[in-house]
Amino acid sequence: MLSISIPRPKCLQKPLAVPQRHMFGPGPSNVPPRIIEAGAKPVIGHMHPELLQIMDDIKSGIQYIFQTQNPMTLAVSSTGHSAMECAFVNSVEPGDGVLVAVNGLWGERAMDIAERLGSRVNTIVAPPGAFFSNAEIEQALSKYRPVMFFLAHGESSTGVLHPLDGIGQLCHKYNCLFVVDSVASFGSAPLCMDQQDIDIVYTGSQKVLNAPPGTAPISFSERACQKIFNRKTKPVSFALDLKWLASYWGCDGKPSRVYHHTGPVSGFYSLRESLAVFAEEI
Amino acid sequence: MLSISIPRPKCLQKPLAVPQRHMFGPGPSNVPPRIIEAGAKPVIGHMHPELLQIMDDIKSGIQYIFQTQNPMTLAVSSTGHSAMECAFVNSVEPGDGVLVAVNGLWGERAMDIAERLGSRVNTIVAPPGAFFSNAEIEQALSKYRPVMFFLAHGESSTGVLHPLDGIGQLCHKYNCLFVVDSVASFGSAPLCMDQQDIDIVYTGSQKVLNAPPGTAPISFSERACQKIFNRKTKPVSFALDLKWLASYWGCDGKPSRVYHHTGPVSGFYSLRESLAVFAEEI
Repeated sequence: MLSISIPRPKCLQKPLAVPQRHMFGPGPSNVPPRIIEAGAKPVIGHMHPELLQIMDDIKSGIQYIFQTQNPMTLAVSSTGHSAMECAFVNSVEPGDGVLVAVNGLWGERAMDIAERLGSRVNTIVAPPGAFFSNAEIEQALSKYRPVMFFLAHGESSTGVLHPLDGIGQLCHKYNCLFVVDSVASFGSAPLCMDQQDIDIVYTGSQKVLNAPPGTAPISFSERACQKIFNRKTKPVSFALDLKWLASYWGCDGKPSRVYHHTGPVSGFYSLRESLAVFAEEI
Repeated sequence: MLSISIPRPKCLQKPLAVPQRHMFGPGPSNVPPRIIEAGAKPVIGHMHPELLQIMDDIKSGIQYIFQTQNPMTLAVSSTGHSAMECAFVNSVEPGDGVLVAVNGLWGERAMDIAERLGSRVNTIVAPPGAFFSNAEIEQALSKYRPVMFFLAHGESSTGVLHPLDGIGQLCHKYNCLFVVDSVASFGSAPLCMDQQDIDIVYTGSQKVLNAPPGTAPISFSERACQKIFNRKTKPVSFALDLKWLASYWGCDGKPSRVYHHTGPVSGFYSLRESLAVFAEEI
């Protein structure tokens, strides 16, 4: 016979207390009432047609904010870190060479993720606050011949906004994908994915977009999809497997959506609204 | 020079439209006003002391709902599928033997996840709608000597509620962790983690708890932690690495919390409130 041995927690008998704060860090940022109200709409099913429409709106919004025509554009159902992991988990197979630009915390995290996946990781390292010239980047691409080059656009740990121009072309010259972390930079600095030859870019909902944390826009170029959908091994993560995500998001060109996971319905509402506000203003 | 080539999406110029629906599936379920209102409180920082207090409340609430004293109790910042992945990613190293009970969709998914991680997967298989006797389970444990046995408590694809009694003891007799998926069953059927010798159990926020999808309660026994914190290899996922999650959630007994990722602040509010409602009612 089962019996209750853990008593009701006293802390849950107090009402939920949340202060008003002015937030000046890179994120989370203060969420405007319109976006808060969107997130407070009634929860519907994760496969209801109205939610799929909202996801389609999100897709169009992300294509706009990243200035891309990529059909493989969606939001990961978690925070920016998971989007970083989504980029690596799908693109890199064990033994693949990865080049990471390390000039602060985000480069270090990317290196950690790439190592966990069994890739051969090389780095170019600059002191915190410094950046890399295109010549340095080309030298490393030529030396290591990686399948992927990772760069943080906004290295929030030091405040460096890294130049992006010309790097995508260099990567493609060496048959390498160009992956950009724009979690801290997106919306505060120009970024045009297609014009800048970026293969994967992601951001978080909780920074310039002013939505609550918990969803993460990401987009993949045709070149990235070529690499990803011609893998020999399955990605180690089921939750982040782009083949499944593409189907749930209707990015694979097929009319029917396949259930993969229960998307964060309320988070999708607020993300959709934050993208609408962004498109109105910028 | 960068220029805007992707125009503003017309779909985002329409107001967000969300219908009222009565939901009768296993989840998402209708979210009561009190929980919706909690999720609409102002977003604060992911390391603000008030949020860490809310996370402590959540921890106590999860200990209550799972009836466990495990200090290693927290919520994953994504949906139930990621909690399933969190259980496997942390507990299983390449080459470890895993036994999965397959009598529907969730067993199949668990098998898929275990295979991606490079474990040696064995299964016991029953037709959809059927279940496993403890004798069958013991026979397989004895034959395959796995480090982990996975069972879905509520197999929502067929409606089977699986008996749990005695299985934890059997697993421990064979030095194996007992992992239970209670995403669809938790709250609708008795489950007492400590009394039933369960080593890892997880659920989703969006089913019986009536919170929006996007957070997933999970708890690890001392025995599970012994296995996890004596791994020879790092877990393949940084986002789900329990060492980091434990520190962010203050489950490691150390006074300072280490930043790992930006938790879904609004999702934590509504999860906290859903746990408070549950503790009041049950």
